Amino acid sequence: MIKVGIIGSTGYAGAELVRILTGHGDAEILWYGSRSYIDKKYSEVYQNMFQIVENICRDDDLSGLAEQADVIFTATPQGYLAGLLNEEILSKTKIVDLSADFRIKDVAVYEKWYGIEHKSPQFIPEAVYGLCEINRGQITEKTRLVANPGCYTTCSILTAYPLVKEGLIDVDTLIVDAKSGTSGAGRGAKLPNLFCEVNENIKAYGVASHRHTPEIEEQLGYAGNCKVTINFTPHLVPMNRGILVTEYASLKRRPDGSLPSYEEVRGAYDKYFGKEKFVRVLEKGVCPETKWVEGSNYVDVNFVIDERTGRVIMMGALDNLVKGAAGQAVQNMNLLFGLPESEGLELVPCFP
Amino acid sequence: MIKVGIIGSTGYAGAELVRILTGHGDAEILWYGSRSYIDKKYSEVYQNMFQIVENICRDDDLSGLAEQADVIFTATPQGYLAGLLNEEILSKTKIVDLSADFRIKDVAVYEKWYGIEHKSPQFIPEAVYGLCEINRGQITEKTRLVANPGCYTTCSILTAYPLVKEGLIDVDTLIVDAKSGTSGAGRGAKLPNLFCEVNENIKAYGVASHRHTPEIEEQLGYAGNCKVTINFTPHLVPMNRGILVTEYASLKRRPDGSLPSYEEVRGAYDKYFGKEKFVRVLEKGVCPETKWVEGSNYVDVNFVIDERTGRVIMMGALDNLVKGAAGQAVQNMNLLFGLPESEGLELVPCFP
Amino acid sequence: MIKVGIIGSTGYAGAELVRILTGHGDAEILWYGSRSYIDKKYSEVYQNMFQIVENICRDDDLSGLAEQADVIFTATPQGYLAGLLNEEILSKTKIVDLSADFRIKDVAVYEKWYGIEHKSPQFIPEAVYGLCEINRGQITEKTRLVANPGCYTTCSILTAYPLVKEGLIDVDTLIVDAKSGTSGAGRGAKLPNLFCEVNENIKAYGVASHRHTPEIEEQLGYAGNCKVTINFTPHLVPMNRGILVTEYASLKRRPDGSLPSYEEVRGAYDKYFGKEKFVRVLEKGVCPETKWVEGSNYVDVNFVIDERTGRVIMMGALDNLVKGAAGQAVQNMNLLFGLPESEGLELVPCFP
Amino acid sequence: MIKVGIIGSTGYAGAELVRILTGHGDAEILWYGSRSYIDKKYSEVYQNMFQIVENICRDDDLSGLAEQADVIFTATPQGYLAGLLNEEILSKTKIVDLSADFRIKDVAVYEKWYGIEHKSPQFIPEAVYGLCEINRGQITEKTRLVANPGCYTTCSILTAYPLVKEGLIDVDTLIVDAKSGTSGAGRGAKLPNLFCEVNENIKAYGVASHRHTPEIEEQLGYAGNCKVTINFTPHLVPMNRGILVTEYASLKRRPDGSLPSYEEVRGAYDKYFGKEKFVRVLEKGVCPETKWVEGSNYVDVNFVIDERTGRVIMMGALDNLVKGAAGQAVQNMNLLFGLPESEGLELVPCFP
Repeated sequence: MIKVGIIGSTGYAGAELVRILTGHGDAEILWYGSRSYIDKKYSEVYQNMFQIVENICRDDDLSGLAEQADVIFTATPQGYLAGLLNEEILSKTKIVDLSADFRIKDVAVYEKWYGIEHKSPQFIPEAVYGLCEINRGQITEKTRLVANPGCYTTCSILTAYPLVKEGLIDVDTLIVDAKSGTSGAGRGAKLPNLFCEVNENIKAYGVASHRHTPEIEEQLGYAGNCKVTINFTPHLVPMNRGILVTEYASLKRRPDGSLPSYEEVRGAYDKYFGKEKFVRVLEKGVCPETKWVEGSNYVDVNFVIDERTGRVIMMGALDNLVKGAAGQAVQNMNLLFGLPESEGLELVPCFP
Repeated sequence: MIKVGIIGSTGYAGAELVRILTGHGDAEILWYGSRSYIDKKYSEVYQNMFQIVENICRDDDLSGLAEQADVIFTATPQGYLAGLLNEEILSKTKIVDLSADFRIKDVAVYEKWYGIEHKSPQFIPEAVYGLCEINRGQITEKTRLVANPGCYTTCSILTAYPLVKEGLIDVDTLIVDAKSGTSGAGRGAKLPNLFCEVNENIKAYGVASHRHTPEIEEQLGYAGNCKVTINFTPHLVPMNRGILVTEYASLKRRPDGSLPSYEEVRGAYDKYFGKEKFVRVLEKGVCPETKWVEGSNYVDVNFVIDERTGRVIMMGALDNLVKGAAGQAVQNMNLLFGLPESEGLELVPCFP
Repeated sequence: MIKVGIIGSTGYAGAELVRILTGHGDAEILWYGSRSYIDKKYSEVYQNMFQIVENICRDDDLSGLAEQADVIFTATPQGYLAGLLNEEILSKTKIVDLSADFRIKDVAVYEKWYGIEHKSPQFIPEAVYGLCEINRGQITEKTRLVANPGCYTTCSILTAYPLVKEGLIDVDTLIVDAKSGTSGAGRGAKLPNLFCEVNENIKAYGVASHRHTPEIEEQLGYAGNCKVTINFTPHLVPMNRGILVTEYASLKRRPDGSLPSYEEVRGAYDKYFGKEKFVRVLEKGVCPETKWVEGSNYVDVNFVIDERTGRVIMMGALDNLVKGAAGQAVQNMNLLFGLPESEGLELVPCFP
Repeated sequence: MIKVGIIGSTGYAGAELVRILTGHGDAEILWYGSRSYIDKKYSEVYQNMFQIVENICRDDDLSGLAEQADVIFTATPQGYLAGLLNEEILSKTKIVDLSADFRIKDVAVYEKWYGIEHKSPQFIPEAVYGLCEINRGQITEKTRLVANPGCYTTCSILTAYPLVKEGLIDVDTLIVDAKSGTSGAGRGAKLPNLFCEVNENIKAYGVASHRHTPEIEEQLGYAGNCKVTINFTPHLVPMNRGILVTEYASLKRRPDGSLPSYEEVRGAYDKYFGKEKFVRVLEKGVCPETKWVEGSNYVDVNFVIDERTGRVIMMGALDNLVKGAAGQAVQNMNLLFGLPESEGLELVPCFP
């Protein structure tokens, strides 16, 4: 049994880790960290866990936990892990970090977009960006630190990845219009997240300034082997879970001026995702819907070619708390310990 | 492997059977019945099942299916099963019926409330009312026909059962005010179930005339060993899943005029549910919420004694598609085949 | 023009006052009080008012405001007005109080249910309970202080009033099961009111202890000329606006043991509400729905007699922010200044 | 009093016409047309109108209605009006058509996108496209036929209009990502519009093929005096009302390669909308939200310049049933009869 510790177990992502790991055959949670609810029963904070989890919430103690845990999940605010990490901790345990601290290789970019100083940049080089379908080879039993991708970014990157990788689109024209359920905003008691403010409403936010932008750009840059600069616009949708991205890019025309065919574009998706369990390339004409992946680790993707404008419209949907956070974190854990990648993640989407 | 056939697999309850059985280690579905979608891929009707279920929907053929299946789930309209059932079918397979056809022992009551003639009353006596926590002993490998309880009824009965059974309340005063998510209304394309009609709205319906009333009355009558006549008022709530019942009854006073204590009432709940996996008696002061059981087979119950009025307010919450339909049906299947009762039902509630 | 001041104009009830008064031909708001947003533009707090309201939010100053305003609406926490009110203020201005401070005649009852000391009980006797349809005669140009009824109470009282008044029901059996949208919980940033906690969920709260209970009991006691003790159970529903009450009571039987007829019960409703603009007694068989009154000052009521149990099920629906708060407050203002009662309140319900 | 007839008064747009006209001082509805509910009381179809509208629904009779009505609103399926219109009708009455029949000047484009033959193309030239803020001058007492714009199109066009008109953006790069509430799908009982299918879900639909595309292109083409070809992607959002558009376009750079300043872009919006009552250009940094315009005739617009990509992100929000349908139709009626343009449209947005 893998001994797991969770720092930040009472946020929505942390709670989803608990839900998933409770059904995982090879892992057991020994530490429910929660600075806000120290000494309170976990099941009083999340009543769904009544009679399932009997543990008490414990204060944060990364060093102490490193002594006991085989792997620590940090579902914590930006800067938390970077402020505490050291070689001794990493020598004792593995860490899957659900924050952004180790996702971006260029410290200056991180500090600019997040507005905080990075306290342990020396560990950035060894951190692996844990987008399993792309970086699977680097996530091994030797890996110590995994930067678990963000929810918007997982969806945005996977949806465009095959076309960027295969050079089918002009990356300078890439626009990502993203829509997210409200759990992505966390469990903090803030006015904009009140039911009456979100319900019956939709808005864009963080326009041209959202922190997930550079993460998408960096990873798609690796794929396309070029500098990528995009527009990324998130929107808040009145639903609990789910992210949908609609991405626009101009297809590169053939020498004769014609557009790539449906089959060519489809071929690119099949090349990279055809054998992936958790990425489903939908059948022609079917648009991804967030409800079809809810509660599961799937990403559904598809595309439409618009002959009139020469653009391809790419679409992707995932559950922000599963493939966009906790599910992917467990997928990374499985890789870190040599387990089957889908262990504990055979979650069938729940409809309706 | 238990070979399973589902008649009515493309309704919401049928789809939930598919979701649950897909994760059941000892059962496999060999027949996805759907009169509306014959020859269509099941995953085109329920896109969440893409790459999970590869089967085609098939026309209804109860007799043909009986040849192949160890158990048939009928998630069909009232009257369907009663119209087709015969001894030959029952000699070849077991049936768990999710309709109301065999729930009520008195045919006249059935015909009055449902407004249709019962076509095979001869099988009513052998049908077992499949409320596992109460009738577990009668659901065995010898049982051929299980009448799976309704969603409102499961919740209403379990919430009041201990107090009726122990004679703590005056059953003539029992009132059940129930609130249901919209999936209970089925997947039929009807105007009252359109998003814009349900959203931002709540209403009562079927007041003093809802068909689940006599089912609750019959079962509580067995518990109390008396005739029970109640008010049952369902309400439609703008959410997908979940039933909450709020039940009111006068507590029987002691000879000295005093009310039973919290501990006495609590003791009754613990007596019947203390060891039940799927019924959770919450801690004092915690009100059940439908979200805490969503996607799971749990029923959460609790109560408050009002010293001012001498009444007890009982509350219960479940997921109408799981414990209120498909989950309970699988629980019955497990009992029918001598499997652990919770097999395939270790579903952790999903929050948020 | 009536000069209006609002203390607490940035809560949901205060904002609804602004919306309604903006369309009122004989009133103008001269003071947008808001302790939380002092010196901020009102339309920055409520962006819907952009280019409609140009005013700045001002700190609370009841005495200063009394100098300028013909009427002050206090949409403030319990205890605020009672803590500041004095004869000088009341000699200069009228007050419509949307809090509970002056609703309950018995100070001891107020202090017990609200858990705070009442600081100015000397004004309780002169305060008129502003349920216009019942107390219209007492709300005149001489009235100085109106206690505007609560949202649950307005709905609960009006729904049962004719039957209590006419002695058709046994008041000791009265049970009120109420369901409310989330705006009733206010705009405070609290975890239980977050979108993800409320959405896809329903729960009871304040069981046997909600503060609106004694207010309902007192007013129905006046109607029935007897002591009334009820069960009142509120529930939180995932919608912004609306209250639905479902009320249960045993009908008093005639000497021959028969129940009152539909016509008799209907007659009682028509007697009290037949000429009321804002109370609509629906046609036989139609259940009130909150959506049908949204945004308007209407209360829709109806009932069903259950011959089996001898009970009548009464139902009522209103918009908690209009007839349940700001609309009724304006209705009271109209009476206080001798205006037509419906002025500014000709709001057609908005559907869908 | 203007005598008004409505054909299609029981769809959502028709019902919104009824709501708005009920509060209009200079118009009275004499004909509630509804093929589906002939001879039924209107208030039984829309219970919110109980005791407000006493009329009966009547069968469609365009010619008969033309004899009586000063203006007819046709809130009917595509092809209905084109199939019946003739000179005699137009000689007797004015028509405001809420369908697409007369919106597009090029019949071939209409027939291609709508897939039906246009039966009366001879009236297309005289039809005025009723986007009041742009075509006000052409909507006069002499105008007989107004093509009321679509909901998506009103929002999409107004949001980009100033920048296209002023030549600030490269129209070939224009992409419109639109999000709509579900009332836009109408009141037809269709499976995809059921509560459980829409709730907790978001999806794109009609990708690269939605019928509002050519309407947007034609109107922006007039503004820019050039051919416009865009990508338009609608999405279905789990809310009743509201459309939000997020539009992307590359700003035209100055000769020195620099981008236009915030002030320049803002200036373009102020030039066209600064004096418009119903178009609100929000303050810098404020993103439009559909909730802020709900129930009103406002369109809220704003923009962000992204220096990194050289694009401007334009945003617009309106209520699809008001400014996107019935409100704009009444605005057109006001112009047709020489009334103040905002008469009956002083609707304050309702929040929450």
